[in-house]
Amino acid sequence: MARRMAKSHDDLRRDAVAAARALVVGEGTAALTVRRVAETIGCSVGTIYNIFADLDDLIVHVAATVLDEMHGALFAAPLPAEPVAALRDLAQRYLAFAVAHPRLWTMLFEYTTASERPMPDWHLERIARLVADVQAHAAAVLDGSGADVKASVDVLWASVHGITALALRGKLGIVTAESAGALADRLVVTFLAGARAERAADVAEGAAGTAGEADR
Amino acid sequence: MARRMAKSHDDLRRDAVAAARALVVGEGTAALTVRRVAETIGCSVGTIYNIFADLDDLIVHVAATVLDEMHGALFAAPLPAEPVAALRDLAQRYLAFAVAHPRLWTMLFEYTTASERPMPDWHLERIARLVADVQAHAAAVLDGSGADVKASVDVLWASVHGITALALRGKLGIVTAESAGALADRLVVTFLAGARAERAADVAEGAAGTAGEADR
Repeated sequence: MARRMAKSHDDLRRDAVAAARALVVGEGTAALTVRRVAETIGCSVGTIYNIFADLDDLIVHVAATVLDEMHGALFAAPLPAEPVAALRDLAQRYLAFAVAHPRLWTMLFEYTTASERPMPDWHLERIARLVADVQAHAAAVLDGSGADVKASVDVLWASVHGITALALRGKLGIVTAESAGALADRLVVTFLAGARAERAADVAEGAAGTAGEADR
Repeated sequence: MARRMAKSHDDLRRDAVAAARALVVGEGTAALTVRRVAETIGCSVGTIYNIFADLDDLIVHVAATVLDEMHGALFAAPLPAEPVAALRDLAQRYLAFAVAHPRLWTMLFEYTTASERPMPDWHLERIARLVADVQAHAAAVLDGSGADVKASVDVLWASVHGITALALRGKLGIVTAESAGALADRLVVTFLAGARAERAADVAEGAAGTAGEADR
């Protein structure tokens, strides 16, 4: 007479993350408690604490699934070969992802963990992959040193993030859901034009310097 | 025999806003309740509800004081006469204000009111004044049409906001409190260089168009 198999550890973990995610989508991160997750998947609170260190740990696992989806939303569909067009598309895809999943996006960026634990490596690796894949596209436009490309991508990312945040919140009336796409596009186009103008000025200055030295 | 004067309506309002603000500064917006404000200033909950429609209304009054302070932080000290330098300073002052008052800044931008009430006019006017005063400085750099200046200021503001938000939260590791100032400066300088390069290209194109017509 076989006993009914208990759910495996992996199944429980997957179910708990899915239940937590559904609670965040439905009601926001503030509604998420270990007790509600346990009730949803039909196990005890203790079982959840056997799998996750605490609520923050569970949230980091949900956040990892959101980062994976964000990566898919940014890169799964082909991007234009022309690199400025590719970066413009990436900005619009980021904005669209946030608009489609406002509570998950808010959880990712605005939730502050109670614990002082550093983010686990597997979480940081997901972030690094996202950033590196955007940098690869930016490198083709900016054609500068690695540090320059990194700083420019940081600026662009944080800026599109700010436009997105204000659009989702509808705060200050500066950015609305309607204007956000156009503002993000203006940001990318104008910032990249500025980066190239600065680079052209540097090259011209360098050439002038070399010419001056040759005269001596 | 005179009865001790009860606090005037204006005094109560001022005390309640100050108490609410102190609670937000000390513990964050989530800790703010009408009951705690009433306890702090020594009146009944009902008295608070005689002055403010609800908690959201009280929060809007606190937010107004934060907007006034932000205006002071941006504009009270003289700005450089050179307009790019002035905008660079404004970005740094905005960032510094947020870093000095992280919970008030978070309340202003991330708190979502429960009620569907539109923001009162006296609140919107404070926001409009802030935006108009930044636009006045941007107009001197951008020298474009009114709509262009407005859109550019919207982009710059939202972008500096995004850098600030990521710096305060320490999220994703993209922006840190240490890198935020340099990133905000790069944003302003490069975006304005791009806006001027685009404008120069428009002028050149316009001149080429006119020359072409004259040739005919």
